[in-house]
Amino acid sequence: MRIGILGSGLIGAKLGVLFARVGHDVTFSYSRNARKLESLARDAGPRARGGTPHDAARNADVVLLAVHWSQLNDVLEQAGSLAGKNVITCMVPLNEANTQLVVPNTSSGAERLAEIIPEAKVVCAFNTVPSEALFGVFERRSITPRPSLVYCGDDAQSKDITVELIRDVGFDPVDAGPLRTARYMEPFAMLGAQLAYGGAAGPELTYRFEWL
Amino acid sequence: MRIGILGSGLIGAKLGVLFARVGHDVTFSYSRNARKLESLARDAGPRARGGTPHDAARNADVVLLAVHWSQLNDVLEQAGSLAGKNVITCMVPLNEANTQLVVPNTSSGAERLAEIIPEAKVVCAFNTVPSEALFGVFERRSITPRPSLVYCGDDAQSKDITVELIRDVGFDPVDAGPLRTARYMEPFAMLGAQLAYGGAAGPELTYRFEWL
Repeated sequence: MRIGILGSGLIGAKLGVLFARVGHDVTFSYSRNARKLESLARDAGPRARGGTPHDAARNADVVLLAVHWSQLNDVLEQAGSLAGKNVITCMVPLNEANTQLVVPNTSSGAERLAEIIPEAKVVCAFNTVPSEALFGVFERRSITPRPSLVYCGDDAQSKDITVELIRDVGFDPVDAGPLRTARYMEPFAMLGAQLAYGGAAGPELTYRFEWL
Repeated sequence: MRIGILGSGLIGAKLGVLFARVGHDVTFSYSRNARKLESLARDAGPRARGGTPHDAARNADVVLLAVHWSQLNDVLEQAGSLAGKNVITCMVPLNEANTQLVVPNTSSGAERLAEIIPEAKVVCAFNTVPSEALFGVFERRSITPRPSLVYCGDDAQSKDITVELIRDVGFDPVDAGPLRTARYMEPFAMLGAQLAYGGAAGPELTYRFEWL
């Protein structure tokens, strides 16, 4: 797949590197530091490159939205039309200090995004595990059972594509239903952040759902 | 411990039975059906009995608040003073249809409760696993690793007591920090509900956090 990364910070950068390592064509974009895009592309190997948000989105099969919530409007403006695209958001809608969800719990960042780009197919995924765990999970991907990763969305095809990408990076996908579930996934991301950064056990946190 | 159950519905009833089976003195209260309290007490064995909310709370070391959110004021009025008590809430603050959280995400049901009974020591626990999983987890309690159960609160002693009770019923306690984290745990309960009741795998759902 051709994957455009909008937002090459902690999570966008790491996911982009892993997507490229398993054989996807990845374009990194939207870093405060243009050199970082080049060094990321080098790290990620021959299937990766740096570019503008417009470059990243234009020919992409999948667009990963990984900017801070406060930058959403800016990056969407730079990306141009996302009509018809599979858009995976791993954003958590936080204030500038990252201490408080700013979208009321009658909605979610992912649902707000879907209202802003109604012609895109929005899936919410990759926001419930700290970025610090991603490489470790990828390295252990041959060990079962794999850690879970929940995702949700309203478009079946986009969800199927998301499932592939979740598996590619070493997780076991768990379907959390319609995009509306993002209003529970985003706070779950904050619970994970509390466990990862608030305790002594460190940030390399994963979770697994098990049915008895 | 002497444990008073306020709200003997799905979760209160099952936790009360398990607490009694491991040797705690349990008083069940606040069911729509007085006969249910008697039959619960019989099921739970000689350490259990039925009573009024006032009976349940008066001599309790621990009070478990397990009513529907809409019944909170009523049960608190019937229970009388909870000053100085360890109060564990497993409530999720939902509307009557159980479709929507009714406390804004700048707070939580548990934090609201602590404002209503400021002299009690409130811990949030037992709300993140479907009631359908409780007996199965208890029966498998000799198998490791056990499923996780997150809890949070601001009083260290109350949290220690909660840890004991979580272990008693077969889970591995995970400290999620201050009571404020309930604003993330309560939506996490809703994510679990979506996975338990919205999918084909059934409601006997557990989760486990693992650090790499």
